[in-house]
Amino acid sequence: MFYKFHKLILAAAFSFSLFSSQAQGQQPDSAVIRNIYREALTQGKSYENLRYLCTQIGPRLSGSEGAAKAVTYTQKLMESYGFDRVYLQDVMVPHWVRGEKEKAFFKSSVGKQEVPICALGGSVGTGKKGIKAQVVEVQSFEELQQLGREKVQGKVVFFNRPMNPAYIEAFLAYRDAVNQRSSGAIEAAKLGAVGAIVRSMNLALDDFPHTGSTRYEEGVTKIPAAAISTNGAELLSRQLKAGPNLEFNFKMNPQTLPDAPSHNVIGEIKGSEHPEEIIVVGGHLDSWDLAQGAHDDGTGCMQAIEVLRLLKVLNIKPKRTIRAVMYMNEENGLRGGRKYAEVALANKENHIAALESDAGGFTPRGFSIDASPNKVADIAKWKELLVPYGLNNIAAGGGGADIGPLKNDKIALIGFRPDSQRYFEVHHAASDTFDRVNQRELELGGASMAALIYLIDKYGL
Amino acid sequence: MFYKFHKLILAAAFSFSLFSSQAQGQQPDSAVIRNIYREALTQGKSYENLRYLCTQIGPRLSGSEGAAKAVTYTQKLMESYGFDRVYLQDVMVPHWVRGEKEKAFFKSSVGKQEVPICALGGSVGTGKKGIKAQVVEVQSFEELQQLGREKVQGKVVFFNRPMNPAYIEAFLAYRDAVNQRSSGAIEAAKLGAVGAIVRSMNLALDDFPHTGSTRYEEGVTKIPAAAISTNGAELLSRQLKAGPNLEFNFKMNPQTLPDAPSHNVIGEIKGSEHPEEIIVVGGHLDSWDLAQGAHDDGTGCMQAIEVLRLLKVLNIKPKRTIRAVMYMNEENGLRGGRKYAEVALANKENHIAALESDAGGFTPRGFSIDASPNKVADIAKWKELLVPYGLNNIAAGGGGADIGPLKNDKIALIGFRPDSQRYFEVHHAASDTFDRVNQRELELGGASMAALIYLIDKYGL
Repeated sequence: MFYKFHKLILAAAFSFSLFSSQAQGQQPDSAVIRNIYREALTQGKSYENLRYLCTQIGPRLSGSEGAAKAVTYTQKLMESYGFDRVYLQDVMVPHWVRGEKEKAFFKSSVGKQEVPICALGGSVGTGKKGIKAQVVEVQSFEELQQLGREKVQGKVVFFNRPMNPAYIEAFLAYRDAVNQRSSGAIEAAKLGAVGAIVRSMNLALDDFPHTGSTRYEEGVTKIPAAAISTNGAELLSRQLKAGPNLEFNFKMNPQTLPDAPSHNVIGEIKGSEHPEEIIVVGGHLDSWDLAQGAHDDGTGCMQAIEVLRLLKVLNIKPKRTIRAVMYMNEENGLRGGRKYAEVALANKENHIAALESDAGGFTPRGFSIDASPNKVADIAKWKELLVPYGLNNIAAGGGGADIGPLKNDKIALIGFRPDSQRYFEVHHAASDTFDRVNQRELELGGASMAALIYLIDKYGL
Repeated sequence: MFYKFHKLILAAAFSFSLFSSQAQGQQPDSAVIRNIYREALTQGKSYENLRYLCTQIGPRLSGSEGAAKAVTYTQKLMESYGFDRVYLQDVMVPHWVRGEKEKAFFKSSVGKQEVPICALGGSVGTGKKGIKAQVVEVQSFEELQQLGREKVQGKVVFFNRPMNPAYIEAFLAYRDAVNQRSSGAIEAAKLGAVGAIVRSMNLALDDFPHTGSTRYEEGVTKIPAAAISTNGAELLSRQLKAGPNLEFNFKMNPQTLPDAPSHNVIGEIKGSEHPEEIIVVGGHLDSWDLAQGAHDDGTGCMQAIEVLRLLKVLNIKPKRTIRAVMYMNEENGLRGGRKYAEVALANKENHIAALESDAGGFTPRGFSIDASPNKVADIAKWKELLVPYGLNNIAAGGGGADIGPLKNDKIALIGFRPDSQRYFEVHHAASDTFDRVNQRELELGGASMAALIYLIDKYGL
C-alpha cells in the first residue's frame, strides 16, 4: 500500500487528550501512560536484553549451566538499573537432562524414513538399544481404552490428535490437546505399551518436535515418551494406513539427576507510602533445553524488568513496593513459583496484585484477572485508559502458573494476554529463537504491563 | 508456559451462544460467522494460494512478466472455484524497470563502505558512470529550505528522518515520514541537488532498502532518488559527522518504458435477490519488483478470493452480487482502481460497499469505515458479533487506495485493519516474503472479511 490517512487510528492515538482536563501540576493518568509507551518504544531496553539472554546464554532448563548464567545475568542487569534491592531466593529444582540427540525411524514401502522426535521433559530413556515395536495410533484416551490391552500390549502408542485449529484463541486448542503429552505415557503404560509418541503441540505443520513435561503415576510402569514433529506425525500416520504393521524404532536416553540448587531472581523498588503492600510482576527464567526460550519466557522476564526500569527512568515513584520476579522452574516443577509464595506467606508479606507474562512477546490484547468480582470491576474501570493501546480484553480469567501459589481472598492475579496466533509454532521447540520476537510487539507488552502496574499502584486494589 | 485455563478466553470463544435464541430453521448470524471462521481455519485455501503466488510467481510490478502470470493465475484460480463469472478488465499501466542492481558506497576514515540502496519507483537513473557528490543530511524539508541553494547545489541530499517509533499505530509513523520518499527528489532538485537518498520507511534497523513511489514535478529537474537501508542510513549519518566532506557514490539505471497493457482480475457470485447491488472485496495484485509481495498485497488478494470461496463452500447464497477484485497497479499509478471505478460509473453499477485489504496479512483488529455517519453506525451495530474474533476497532476511518475512486454519497468504503506492528519491516522490501506470513493470521483475516461481507449482504447498508 502506498499511503492512506486513517482517522480511526488518529482518533485512537490522540484519545488521551480526553483525559487531559484532570488535575494540573500532576500529570493525568493518560499522559503518564503515554509517556510509558513512548519511553518503551523509543528508549526501551527489553529487546537488547532479550537478545543477550537468548543468543549469549540460550537454553536454560532448571539445573543447567544456562539457568545459572541467566540467574547471574538478570541479577546484574537489575543491579545495573539501580533498583532499590536485588536479591536471589534459593530454591531446589528438578534436574533432568536430555542426553544425546534422540533418533527415530521406521521402514515402509518406500524405505527407511527418519522422523524428528525429542524426549518429553521428565521422560525415562529407551536404553541404549532403543525400542522397536509396532504402532497403534489413537486420537484420544477413550479410543485407547476401547482398543484394550490386547491390541496395545508391547506396542508404541502414537497419540495423534491435532490441536484444533477452529479455535480463535490458540490456548484453547492447546488445552484440548495437551493431555496427550502430559498423561499419554501413563494411559499407554496402563495397557502394556512400551512407549508413547505424541504429536507435537503445534498448530502449524513443520519439522520441529515440541517438548514439554510429561507425567508418570505411581504404580504404573514408566515408559519412554517423545514428541514427534507435526510433519513427522502426518507421515507416520499415512504410512500406518498403508502398512499397519510397520515397526517404529526410537532411541533416547534422558536422565533425571538429583535435585539441584537454583534461584528466583528478585528486584524491587520500595514503595514511598505503603512499602508493606507489594505488587509483583514477573515471568519465568527457565526454558526448555531445546530452545533459546525467547517467547517462553525470555520475553516475560525482560518485560518484567522493563516495567521497573520504566517507572524508574520516568521518575514515577510508586507508593507501594513493586517487585520484578524471574521465577525458576516453571516448565518442569513450578518450584520457583511455589517457593516465592511460601516465603511471602512465612514473612507475612501483603501482596495486593501479581502480574505474569508467560504467553509470548506478541502484540498486547489485554489482561485476564483471577480475583473477586469487585477487583475485576476495579481493574476494568481503567479500560478507557488502556484501549488506545489495543488492550481491549480486560476481564475475569486465569492469572498464571507462577503466580498461582499466591492465591488468596485478597490478591488480584493477572495474566498479560498478547495475541496468541503464533505462540504454538515456537512453544517448547528449537524454533523459539530471538529472531521470532518483534521488537515493537515486545516493547508494547512491557509498556502495557507498566501502565497497569502504575494504575494498580496509584489507586490500590 | 505449561498450561492454564482461561475463563476469559472461553467466554469470548463461546459468546456466540448468546445469539442462538434467534430464528430457528435459519441459522443465527453468530452461528454463520462461527462457521465461516471454522471453515477458514480448518479448510482454508488462502495460505497455499499465497504460497504459489509468492514462491512460484514472485515479484509482479505492473507491466512485468510476473504481473501477467499473476493475472492468469488468479483468473484460473477463481474459475476453479466455480464462481458465477470470472473476467479480466483491461487497463494500461506504467512500466518502470529497475535495470541492474544498484550500487552505492562512500569512503571514510575506515575505508570504502558499501551500503544497500535501491532506486525508488519511478526514479530516473544516474547514467552509467553514476553520481559522486558530497552529501547534505537533513531531517525535514524545512531544514532543507533553511540550508538554501548555496549549501545544496551539486550535492546529494540525504533525507534521514526516521519513522517515529512512539506511535502505537505504525501507519501513523509512516504517514509522518513518507513525504521524504514521495517528494524528496522534488524538494532537493529545486535547490540544485544532483540526487536524493532517502532513509527506508522501516521501523526496524536492518539491511533491506525499501522502495516505493517517488514523484517528479513539471518544471523541476528529475534527479535520481534511492532508498538506503536503515542500517545504511545510520552508518552514513555517523560517518558524515566524522567527515562532513565524504563523497557518496551511487549508480542505478532504471527506465520508464511505454505504458503496457494489463488487467484487473474480477470474480463474482451473482446476488439471488438484488443482483444489481454490488459489494466488492479486494486487494492489489501488483507488487514491487524487489519483493514476493506477500503482505503487500498477496495476502489481500488471496483473502478476497477466499471470501467468495467461503460463501460458496458454506452454501451462503448472497442476496447481492459479491465481487472479488484483484486491482492492478496500486503501487505506482493506481490505474486499476481508477479503471474499475470508471467502468462501474459507465455501466451505472450500484456499489453499496467496497472492502479493501492492503495493510498486511496480520491478526485482525477491525475495520475503518469511510461513509456517512449513519452507515458507520449501521456497521458498528454488528460489533457484538465481531468482537469475539478480535475485531474491536470498528469505527470511522480511511477505506483504501484502490477503492477510493468509487467514493460517492452512498457507498461505504471499508478498510480491513490488521495489527500494524510488523508491516513496515517488510513493506516494499525484499523481506516481504511468504515465510513472513502466518497461516492463522492470514486465515483469520479472510474470515473476518467474509463475516463482514455476509452481514452487509444480508442486511444491506
